[in-house]
Amino acid sequence: MTRWPLPEPMQEAIALAARAAELGEVPIGAVITHDGQIIAASHNSPRKDHDPTAHAEIAAIRAAAKSLGQQRLENCELWVTLEPCAMCAGAISHARIAKLYYAASDPKGGAVEHGARVFEQDQCLHRPDVYSGIGEAQAAEILRNFFRKRR
Amino acid sequence: MTRWPLPEPMQEAIALAARAAELGEVPIGAVITHDGQIIAASHNSPRKDHDPTAHAEIAAIRAAAKSLGQQRLENCELWVTLEPCAMCAGAISHARIAKLYYAASDPKGGAVEHGARVFEQDQCLHRPDVYSGIGEAQAAEILRNFFRKRR
Repeated sequence: MTRWPLPEPMQEAIALAARAAELGEVPIGAVITHDGQIIAASHNSPRKDHDPTAHAEIAAIRAAAKSLGQQRLENCELWVTLEPCAMCAGAISHARIAKLYYAASDPKGGAVEHGARVFEQDQCLHRPDVYSGIGEAQAAEILRNFFRKRR
Repeated sequence: MTRWPLPEPMQEAIALAARAAELGEVPIGAVITHDGQIIAASHNSPRKDHDPTAHAEIAAIRAAAKSLGQQRLENCELWVTLEPCAMCAGAISHARIAKLYYAASDPKGGAVEHGARVFEQDQCLHRPDVYSGIGEAQAAEILRNFFRKRR
């Protein structure tokens, strides 16, 4: 049996999540692609950076916008290992990200299909196309292992 | 008649909003205080910085956390001229800001008393005490003038 391969950007996001775990950060990774090329890749780093906003998505969006020299990321796609929180969903909307792919759902902190449901608000000015469940088993396992070790 | 003076941090936030307008950025200013002292002061700068996350609140939170050398801002107060959006409300919660003071309400983009109502979600792990309407006339006027000129 051949297991269907994950898209390369999600493989990279999952590798970044694993790297975050090694550094003692909550293991979440994010990658931004533009014209099929990876232009930014980040993982959570609030502890190391002393920055509560340093989620993988925020770091990737900031890096991608800097690299393109513009504040909007139209035609860009964001790949992240966990359902974005309200902060990150808001940033994704502000950045005008075209497509959002995420691996695991997050009933505790996610704000796409849970809680604040940022993209479903009438006032939301830009909604990306959203695809979930891509690589969720791997992404969830990395998170589970991380929190199991910390208990 | 003597007009009741605004608290100094909000006066400063309003001055920063006016400064943002001069620079062509949406005029919103934010200040963070700790033990009654201002430890961070910022305004919107997504255009200049090529950073869709560079709202006044995010910039102030990042600067304050850096200056305190920690990712959490317990015992800190955030003063901002406009009701925070979902991104910024999420960041305020992650940062564990104790008290949030804002000037004008924002039915179009606010996510405290409108839309995503981030702090009212069951999953929200930290809710600041929220005080609104402090300096709202001045803050709203700066915003109105800015958008009137751009039309």
